Amino acid sequence: MPDPLQHRLPDDVGYLLSRTSADVLRDTNSALQPLGLRARAFAVLSCAAEPEAEHTQRQLAHRLGLDPSQVVALVDDLSARGLVERRPGEQDRRTRTVVATAQGHRLLGEAVCVVAEAQRRYLDVLTAAETRELRRVLTKLSDR
Amino acid sequence: MPDPLQHRLPDDVGYLLSRTSADVLRDTNSALQPLGLRARAFAVLSCAAEPEAEHTQRQLAHRLGLDPSQVVALVDDLSARGLVERRPGEQDRRTRTVVATAQGHRLLGEAVCVVAEAQRRYLDVLTAAETRELRRVLTKLSDR
Repeated sequence: MPDPLQHRLPDDVGYLLSRTSADVLRDTNSALQPLGLRARAFAVLSCAAEPEAEHTQRQLAHRLGLDPSQVVALVDDLSARGLVERRPGEQDRRTRTVVATAQGHRLLGEAVCVVAEAQRRYLDVLTAAETRELRRVLTKLSDR
Repeated sequence: MPDPLQHRLPDDVGYLLSRTSADVLRDTNSALQPLGLRARAFAVLSCAAEPEAEHTQRQLAHRLGLDPSQVVALVDDLSARGLVERRPGEQDRRTRTVVATAQGHRLLGEAVCVVAEAQRRYLDVLTAAETRELRRVLTKLSDR
């Protein structure tokens, strides 16, 4: 049983995750701004650009931990800009999948570079081993 | 320069932080619901209960990475429930500080227990050493 008098918010893993993820999100959004993207649109475009991926909007929502209505709005926006298309699924023609266009692939290429650079700057207080370990432990947590 | 074709969203530290922090936030909010609290109100109450703390609303906003208007709304709500009080600062009587009441301390005691239990369940895929290392690395990142 934790002692409430000993509780210190800065030691709380949930609080630390929320602080650091808010910081990375802020840096990622700033880096993406010149490209007219935000982190969530970047995540959708990134999934839509995976080779041989067949993602329905529902699958994207599940994968990205977003509400289906949020994904519909993001896909509408990316689609209006010619970056993704809704296409009938190859395995099941009745479903509609979200696929990056050639223009979407080009923009994603730039976006990946600016996001990687923003994250490199954010993570530069860590050693390479600490960054690897952080990625490994977070992957273990998110795969649970 | 990262190769866009090699980009995999699940390897992206920013994405992993955002996924895991959303998961912990969901579990924390569920655990706090019977107490009528959410994670942000819990964070404000936790700061307000620190012994000899003198936090103004502006300082709470900075500390918790929230907008000052969000903190005012959270303090209004906690105050209406008799869990915190706005008091003139001891060091500077012109400032107004946010201090937990006896009732706030009691509720915080319960909240600390349910949040710790929710986090223990969330983190139970990690070894004790991995959890310690995660806390250490996240602290290093959030102190930058």
